[in-house]
Amino acid sequence: MPAAPLRIGLAGLGTVGIGIVQIVQRHADLIATRAGRPVIITAVSARDRKKNRDADLSAYAWEADPVTLAQRPDVDVFVEVMGGHDGPAKAATEAALVAGKDVVTANKALLAHHGQALAEAAETLGRVIRFEAAVAGGIPVIKALTEGLAANRIKRVMGVMNGTCNYILTRMQSAGLPYDTVFEEARQLGYLEADPTLDVGGIDAGHKLSLLAAIAFGTKVSFDAVELEGIGNVSIDDIRLAQDMGYRIKLLGVAQMTGRGLEQRMTPCLVPADSPLGQLQGGTNMVVLEGDAVGQIVLRGPGAGMGPTASAVMGDVIDLARGLRLPTFGIPANQLATPIAARSATPAPYYLRMTLLDKPGALAKIATCLGEAGISIDQMRQYGHVGIHATVLIVTHKAAPDDIAHATAGFAATGVLVDAPVAIRIEEV
Amino acid sequence: MPAAPLRIGLAGLGTVGIGIVQIVQRHADLIATRAGRPVIITAVSARDRKKNRDADLSAYAWEADPVTLAQRPDVDVFVEVMGGHDGPAKAATEAALVAGKDVVTANKALLAHHGQALAEAAETLGRVIRFEAAVAGGIPVIKALTEGLAANRIKRVMGVMNGTCNYILTRMQSAGLPYDTVFEEARQLGYLEADPTLDVGGIDAGHKLSLLAAIAFGTKVSFDAVELEGIGNVSIDDIRLAQDMGYRIKLLGVAQMTGRGLEQRMTPCLVPADSPLGQLQGGTNMVVLEGDAVGQIVLRGPGAGMGPTASAVMGDVIDLARGLRLPTFGIPANQLATPIAARSATPAPYYLRMTLLDKPGALAKIATCLGEAGISIDQMRQYGHVGIHATVLIVTHKAAPDDIAHATAGFAATGVLVDAPVAIRIEEV
Repeated sequence: MPAAPLRIGLAGLGTVGIGIVQIVQRHADLIATRAGRPVIITAVSARDRKKNRDADLSAYAWEADPVTLAQRPDVDVFVEVMGGHDGPAKAATEAALVAGKDVVTANKALLAHHGQALAEAAETLGRVIRFEAAVAGGIPVIKALTEGLAANRIKRVMGVMNGTCNYILTRMQSAGLPYDTVFEEARQLGYLEADPTLDVGGIDAGHKLSLLAAIAFGTKVSFDAVELEGIGNVSIDDIRLAQDMGYRIKLLGVAQMTGRGLEQRMTPCLVPADSPLGQLQGGTNMVVLEGDAVGQIVLRGPGAGMGPTASAVMGDVIDLARGLRLPTFGIPANQLATPIAARSATPAPYYLRMTLLDKPGALAKIATCLGEAGISIDQMRQYGHVGIHATVLIVTHKAAPDDIAHATAGFAATGVLVDAPVAIRIEEV
Repeated sequence: MPAAPLRIGLAGLGTVGIGIVQIVQRHADLIATRAGRPVIITAVSARDRKKNRDADLSAYAWEADPVTLAQRPDVDVFVEVMGGHDGPAKAATEAALVAGKDVVTANKALLAHHGQALAEAAETLGRVIRFEAAVAGGIPVIKALTEGLAANRIKRVMGVMNGTCNYILTRMQSAGLPYDTVFEEARQLGYLEADPTLDVGGIDAGHKLSLLAAIAFGTKVSFDAVELEGIGNVSIDDIRLAQDMGYRIKLLGVAQMTGRGLEQRMTPCLVPADSPLGQLQGGTNMVVLEGDAVGQIVLRGPGAGMGPTASAVMGDVIDLARGLRLPTFGIPANQLATPIAARSATPAPYYLRMTLLDKPGALAKIATCLGEAGISIDQMRQYGHVGIHATVLIVTHKAAPDDIAHATAGFAATGVLVDAPVAIRIEEV
């Protein structure tokens, strides 16, 4: 007797939704062979039924309301690619679980805000939520971390997980253009979310980091504790000068468990130009996983787009068709620890840029501030004067973030700085 | 009622075996939480019981014979890290399956030679064989390909999967040393297998490629059809000159399905210096997976060693503890197609190096040979004369391997070459 098909109810027919339809239709035989049973779509839902879409939907039932879709008796897996962290996506996901459906979602915002409650609901109801597509698009990083590296205590996870930000930063570097110009380019190319602060403010990438951290460290998702800083203040000067010293600037997410608690940062960082992270160009994503047994694993691939996102969603669906059933965050939701959010205190080298008045002793005053904060200097460069000002770059030895903040606050009192100094963490990769 | 433990019988107590013991002992709680049940070792086996090992084995039963170990009633999973493609490893694996045990192995040679028969036996008996550790060490590439990318038709897989070869090639480049010198260094550092042709002859990497190809394309393992060429003929001259033109030389495995059949190559190739493969230094491994939906995914990490290999073995064991049961090669063994082995015919640019007699018209004769074979020239460089000879480098446009062979054979008839020309494929990555 042939195995019963796994039946998808698909909510959302934007780019990703249509990508899923195309894979299900094009690779029906391939997927049936791999999954051991057919995988079919029975019903779909989207806002506008009349919109012209690049797929034949005639074989699928239509539901105007995703909640109704989620409850249909001919649906086994509710696939949610609508987006939005409240409203219909949340309501339909909850309805699907209550109605006894498993859920596959690409919705990082939903899980960053409601992941714990949804995971608890799913596990109470004996259901599974999977979300490979929510983090780093087509890269199977949730699987690598939850399953492939399951025998490791994870030490640190890092990632460049917003392609738009990486596009902007690498384009600024290669074209020598300021942020505002490249931001406008990106907007015109359609690379930005309707609310661009989701991208350039680091929020989207922060959502992803909080999900990775939960899995890596067995803690509840704690998006509110991510130290977030977007790329809006990254200047072309810093990009150029960092390059000069052998670094690149990336919007880098870092999560690590320390003796004081869980540090989660999504901030611009310098990384060595010749490291895998430093070499990452354009919209590509990269995630670095560090485990006590395996060492460092680096995963690189497309972080967004129709094909990659649909590939990740369908990977999860095929897992379900094959019978793989894991808790949402790798361990049971009721065993996830409440993380102690630690303000970043892990020492790192820092890049400091400042503009000094060309006065005798100016540099000595800066050096004194650093010395008093216990910070030693690894490299220093003074660049040619512009009028009566000089740009000074310092790369420090490892220093605690608070010490750096203390020192740079002290610079103001010296009266030798023209404007506020720039301090950017150099993440050791 | 707490879930029953999953019980390992561990055959092999070399570096990897002891790494497994350490993980099981050190992370007992972590693994039990993640797997939903304890994972324990009940019995072990190795050649020499008295050897001093860096682990406390006193709680485990000892079996002198791995076959007996594999049949013990207190073993659920037989973990094979002995090595060797015949003899005890094969006998014990077969015995384990017949005795109703699942098998986790790190043994690429065993599966490259007997994978089809073992997979069929396992599936007939309702058992599972897993082998993440057999390919690219700690990198979860089997999982990424079989599960994460299960919704993709795979177009090509590539990999640098022998750390020793990559160490030798990158060390030749960075130190400017010839092959024989670096080979001897590697031997003294203990990087080489007892039979070094397994490494430098490309056999070990070829085993891994044949396993990846089977999974990627749903075909029977076909190691005998891998076009194998080791690194013994890679000269320091070629490494230098390739570098000069923006390339690196790697022992690169490539498997791709073409209209004529399955191409599998494990040969020295040029790759762009600024590509992820080109940037790979030392003993690190890298695998590139290309799917029709996801595009290109690159995975990088340690390809060997105690921790990484044990991490991969235990990832498989935890999958079994969690109830994941897949066919060995992703689809049922009796549905794997018999691949048509195609001699490589996919066109690529080629690097050609030759030493010409300094005669008028010498270069024209070479160019004529290329033209007659339908090969056009992308770049050409002539290097300073040594005595009456001149080194000439040519990078061709895309050409079929047979046309390149035909052209270089034709060079001999021109009478202007001092010695045999070198032709190396430039793999487009």
